[in-house]
Amino acid sequence: MFVLGLDPGTAITGYGVIEALPDGAFRAVDYGVITTPAKTPLAERLLLLHQELEALLTRHALRGAAVEKLFFQRNVTTAMSVGQARGVLLLTLAQHGLAVAEYTPNEVKEAITGYGSAGKAQMQRMIQMLLGLETLPRPDDAADALAVALCHAQRLRWQARTGAA
Amino acid sequence: MFVLGLDPGTAITGYGVIEALPDGAFRAVDYGVITTPAKTPLAERLLLLHQELEALLTRHALRGAAVEKLFFQRNVTTAMSVGQARGVLLLTLAQHGLAVAEYTPNEVKEAITGYGSAGKAQMQRMIQMLLGLETLPRPDDAADALAVALCHAQRLRWQARTGAA
Repeated sequence: MFVLGLDPGTAITGYGVIEALPDGAFRAVDYGVITTPAKTPLAERLLLLHQELEALLTRHALRGAAVEKLFFQRNVTTAMSVGQARGVLLLTLAQHGLAVAEYTPNEVKEAITGYGSAGKAQMQRMIQMLLGLETLPRPDDAADALAVALCHAQRLRWQARTGAA
Repeated sequence: MFVLGLDPGTAITGYGVIEALPDGAFRAVDYGVITTPAKTPLAERLLLLHQELEALLTRHALRGAAVEKLFFQRNVTTAMSVGQARGVLLLTLAQHGLAVAEYTPNEVKEAITGYGSAGKAQMQRMIQMLLGLETLPRPDDAADALAVALCHAQRLRWQARTGAA
């Protein structure tokens, strides 16, 4: 079962595809960042982001996708900018018939470390361990995307086991 | 010359298509709002918004499109929500090869009334007059979209006359 996590941004969007293995383990399949050039008009940057996600969706047969549910941002300008990228990503997933789950940052931390207030370093070590990576996941946006993917994969696995909706 | 203005929102997006006539006048061609159901998952609402804009772009052979450039929002949650709709609309316009202009609210007010701090009622009366409408443009989101379209049409007309880029 392949699951995608996304950490949206217009300048840089983190993505992480993981596989939930039958033995209960997880494996990192594909992760990194999509970047768009700062001096390009906004609409074209969003088109690039859409096209890169399309390419990603073509490469992997996904069972589900998830993004972080963000309540707080440093400021409204950041929120607007993240929102624009997030809207494009959600649309693209919907166009591919993928249901999109949303998790709060605390839900993601809780799922990965068992502790809703875990720090960034603690999170990255847990992601490294859960996915059997040789090094810490980098860059930060890709690590955040892998964390959301892990959170969602755990939920999907639990639903499959219990038959919960 | 047909020009589209948009006032983005996930729940309600205003749109206005106007024609800049050769004699210097303007005409309202098509205006209204695109709404999406509140209880539908966000990604599906964004897909509906995308599809409605696609239908609008199919109906009219547009020369240009514009949205308001928003610096301030009541709060970050609103900014995120507006941003998501805005991202989807900008993407859809870019997919159709339409360049998208952005104007600040003050630029729009200045273009319509000659006064950057014009009130809503004053704006609506000017829009009614400029477009030769029998009644005030309604609802507010459609009126705002018509105002952005008028602002952009004036700019495009000026550029055509002066050869400015």
